[in-house]
This record gives sequence, C-alpha cells and structure tokens, in this order.
Amino acid sequence: MRTRLTEMLGIEHPIVQGGMQWVGLAELAAAVSNAGGLGILTALTQPTPEALDKEIKRCREMTDKPFGVNLTILPTIKPVPYEEYARVIIESGIKIVETAGRNPEPFLPPYKAAGITVIHKCTSIRHSLKAERIGVDIVSVDGFECAGHPGEDDITNFILLPLAARKLSIPFIASGGFGDGKGLAAALALGAEGINMGTRFMATKEAPIHDKVKQAMVEANELDTALIFRSLRNTARVFKNGIAEQVLEIESRPGETQFEDIRELVQGARGREVYTRGELDHGIWSAGMVVGLIDDVPTCEELLRRIVEEAEQIIAERLSAIGAVSGRDIHASA
Amino acid sequence: MRTRLTEMLGIEHPIVQGGMQWVGLAELAAAVSNAGGLGILTALTQPTPEALDKEIKRCREMTDKPFGVNLTILPTIKPVPYEEYARVIIESGIKIVETAGRNPEPFLPPYKAAGITVIHKCTSIRHSLKAERIGVDIVSVDGFECAGHPGEDDITNFILLPLAARKLSIPFIASGGFGDGKGLAAALALGAEGINMGTRFMATKEAPIHDKVKQAMVEANELDTALIFRSLRNTARVFKNGIAEQVLEIESRPGETQFEDIRELVQGARGREVYTRGELDHGIWSAGMVVGLIDDVPTCEELLRRIVEEAEQIIAERLSAIGAVSGRDIHASA
Repeated sequence: MRTRLTEMLGIEHPIVQGGMQWVGLAELAAAVSNAGGLGILTALTQPTPEALDKEIKRCREMTDKPFGVNLTILPTIKPVPYEEYARVIIESGIKIVETAGRNPEPFLPPYKAAGITVIHKCTSIRHSLKAERIGVDIVSVDGFECAGHPGEDDITNFILLPLAARKLSIPFIASGGFGDGKGLAAALALGAEGINMGTRFMATKEAPIHDKVKQAMVEANELDTALIFRSLRNTARVFKNGIAEQVLEIESRPGETQFEDIRELVQGARGREVYTRGELDHGIWSAGMVVGLIDDVPTCEELLRRIVEEAEQIIAERLSAIGAVSGRDIHASA
Repeated sequence: MRTRLTEMLGIEHPIVQGGMQWVGLAELAAAVSNAGGLGILTALTQPTPEALDKEIKRCREMTDKPFGVNLTILPTIKPVPYEEYARVIIESGIKIVETAGRNPEPFLPPYKAAGITVIHKCTSIRHSLKAERIGVDIVSVDGFECAGHPGEDDITNFILLPLAARKLSIPFIASGGFGDGKGLAAALALGAEGINMGTRFMATKEAPIHDKVKQAMVEANELDTALIFRSLRNTARVFKNGIAEQVLEIESRPGETQFEDIRELVQGARGREVYTRGELDHGIWSAGMVVGLIDDVPTCEELLRRIVEEAEQIIAERLSAIGAVSGRDIHASA
C-alpha cells in the first residue's frame, strides 16, 4: 500500500507502532520496522539521555529500515532533562520523532533544522489544528478508544477522523482501536493515511514484555479496559485489573482524601513489573479497547502482512463489488 | 450500491433512518424511502394503536417504496398496549419492523408469521448474538457514538463493528456516528451491510421538527452532546443544553434526593416541545456525536445522493489507488 504516510516516512506499510512506556525498546521497534511498518523507541523508557543513545545504536544494529523515537512531555514531580533527550535524538541522526503530551512547539525548531519529520499525537481537533499551525508534519489522531491518555472529551474515531479529513491539510494517522485489516481499510476510507497501533503490538512475539501480559490480552474482551483518573482530569485507559478497579472505587466516592488515596495506591503499584515479571495485578498498565479484537500473539511480520492483506482484500473484493453498482443503475433496472 | 441489506429490504441505498421518538412521522419516513433509503415510523410517537394505523396509511399515500415501523419496548410507569401496536403493524401489511429496548423474543412469532423482516437494535455483542439466536433477521449495532441509549459499556463502533463481523452470521447495520460518505465506506469496510442514521436525518428539510432545532445541530460541534442518567444506569446521549447540564450537575453530587431531583427536573421538561416549538432549552432531546459532522440542512434526496456518491468515490478512487499497490510490489521495486 502506498499513501502519503508511506511516502513521507519511507516505509512499506502505512502502520506505525505507537510510543509505549516500558515497551518501546529496540526489540519491538526493530521488529516492526523490519516488517515494513514504522517502529518507535520511547525515549523516557531509558533512564538517561545516554542510555537512549545506546538504545538507538542497538536498534540500528537490529534493522536498517527507518524507525522513530517518541519523546513525550508530561508534567512530572522530578524534573526530566527533555532537552538532553531531544539533543541525543537529533545527534544520533534519527529522522522521525513522535511527540505527545504537551505542545511540542519549543522543540520544533531544532527538529526541523535537523530535517526530522515530526508526528504529534492529538486527542482533539482543536489540538490537531494547532499542531498543523505550528509546523508539525503529521498528526496522529487519538480517539476515545486508545490506550493511555484519551483526553477528557470522549470523542471517538468515527467522529474525529472525518473531522480531521475535513479540517487538516497535513496528513494524519488514525490511532486508537486498530488491530486488523478491517480497521486499516476503514481508517483509509475516513481519510487517514495510515494507522497507529500500540496495544496490538504488545501482543506480538517480539514485544519485550512478559508472556503473561500477552496472554491476558488474548483472553480479554472489549469490556476489559477502564478509564481511571477521570476525577483528576488526567483520564487514562488501562487494563481493568484489580488495582484499576480499586482506583475506580476510590474515584466513585469523592472526598477530601481522594487524591492522597489514589496517589498512595498508584505509588505502591509498579507498572514496569507487570511487563517484566508478568505480575498482572501489581500495577496499572495501559491497554486500548482493541484488546477485544486480539486473539493471538503473532510475529510483527505475520501481523503486518495479515493486516495489509485483509485491507487489500476488502478494498479489491468487498468494497469494489458494492461500490461498482451505483444506486442509479439499480434504480434504472428496477 | 448493492449489499445484503439493500437486497433484503428492497431498497436502493444501504441507509436506514433510525426510529426517533416525536420525529419518526410520515413526512420524514416517506422522504427517506422516496430518496432510496429505508424510512421508519416510530409507533410510540402515535398516542394510540389506531393513530399508528392512520399514520401508516398516511405514509403509504406519500410513498410507494418500502418503509418500516419502529416499536421500542421500554419500562414505563403507565402501561403501553405493545401487543395492540404490534397487531396494527402486522395487519396494516408492514414488512419491516425495527425493535429496540427489551428482548424482542415474545413478538417474533407473530412478526415472522406475517413475513416481516425484523431489525433489532443492540448496543453490545452479547445482545447481538442473542438476537441472532432467537431469530432476528438483521442487527442494528449501536455504538457509544449514538443518540439516545448507548447502554453502559461505552464500546465504540470501531470495536463493535469488526467484532460483529467476526461473530454474527446474519447481516448487521452500523449505527451511531454516521452522517457522510466517509462513514458509509468505513462501515462497509468494517463488515456492516449499511448504516443507520438518526441525528443526521433530523437536520433535513423534511424532518418534522422546528427549524431552530435543525439550526442548533448545524451550529453544534462534536463536543455538544452529553451522557445523562448514567447514575441511574439508563445512560442517554442528548444535546448538551441547559437542562442536560442541570441533570449532569445533580448527578455529580450523589445524595439521597438525587433520584427525586432528576425526576422532578425531567418531568418538568418537555422533549416534544423542543421539536414542535423550537424551545431548545425546555426539554431533553437526543442527539448523537455526529452533530459535529452536520453542516447543513439538505433534503433527504440530496443527503442520500451525496453520501452514496462520496462513498462510491472513496472506494473507486482513493481506496482503489491505495490498495492497488501491494506492499510486496513496492518492496520489490524499492
């Protein structure tokens, strides 16, 4: 498949692996890029800018295809040396950066000067338009379905994507809810130039997370995610495990100590250890609504081939057959 | 366009007008059917079964195309003579019925005996499978985006539709979030045999509601709906007007009198008078998330032609161009 996205990024399939904290390591990014998609390392999964530099080099040894780096700017208690991470990205010769969280404007001049293509994640049309205005190259439109932070508007991709198609001039990627060829074909129909997948890539052979997590995703259905932290206006879609249910329980009874209760619970939880040790109930971990569409743990190569082939078949057979018979023709022959 | 839906219903375009209380009168149903879609009268908009019989006759005088009748079974304080309404539908020779609300099983034997095609609205996969099992002919899958009652699961059409495609044998219609050709093409890509539109048909010239309501929908954006009655587990997506905001305010502070406070507020509100007199803030009125995609008030004929032509163009041009270049071909030539 060839779209504006594949052309701009120099990739084979219009499928981007979304930046995922603790998951976006060289093993996964290289596997996705080798399979013809765009793999993405997450900068802040590395403890220091120097470690990111090493991870980028490690990824280069595993693939000669393009891959990108995600640098998410979030409010943190402990200051994070974002500028240092950005400098490592630029100096290492990375040509594709995914930004998320805050407005990426301060980082754009150095990125653009280095010839970097910037993909910015947005959960709303107003932020997408702002991103276009400040010079972002591609918007990744994140619907209500997505894992992690969907924002507070709760607008789904069936509304966001056609709105983006009407209002944006720059290309956009559909993100949130994608895991098969039906979704890819539908996203292209709605005007997107490709799809972003996070959760679906967690359930692949190469994802550097514990098998128990992958198995939990295979067994989960569409009802197994929850929106937590809504009362803090920092909503996150996560796997609905015991700890997520405890957070929801605290949030359902507002009170003076609510914020402290949540903080205590979450600080004790260790998201990273879910992934490394498979301790499914010991931390909060992101999962999108698409867990309901995940039934197996293929390699990235198998997954991407299957998605693209299904989408191509839908377009070439199903849609072409339906679309070939125009309403007026039926009418005339009736 | 020809799909299993158009074949089963004997219609030209795979577009069904959803049943809408106070709106599903002969004027709208006949206009939709005359435009090549399936118009639907709502039985309970008529005060008595006899009045429904007259409305069906009135609709027949306005169109010789097929149209259907919606009979929604809801818990009510005052008993509703559902069996009488059903008998009128059957005896009047109607051949397509849309059921919603409760399980339609008790009504299926008489409908089937009369050769009626039954479309049942479902907001979940488990209800869709149940509907298939009991003998419903077509499921109308209602996503989180929809106006009225989306259920309590909050699963969007980007997840529900591919799940329905995997699990159902009977054809299904995509409902909730649809208003343009992009959405139709995407719904077909996800496996639906057509789309159901409610909100979008309210903003047509023939919709028998006050112009002020139509204008409010044109001016609204995607953020102008609200989910009310969640605390009663009877969630409804409505236009976010002053009265909806008052309900949300009451729901945000749980207490002993919450239920009474809501009932008092809602009983004073007159949904019907919003539609008839254009008193936008005097009642709760349903509107789906698709209000964000509505920019004008066309005739039903213009609307349906535009949607089908846009979908056909997306399939014949955009998708065919993208799908024609297979990944392997690019790879080989790179």
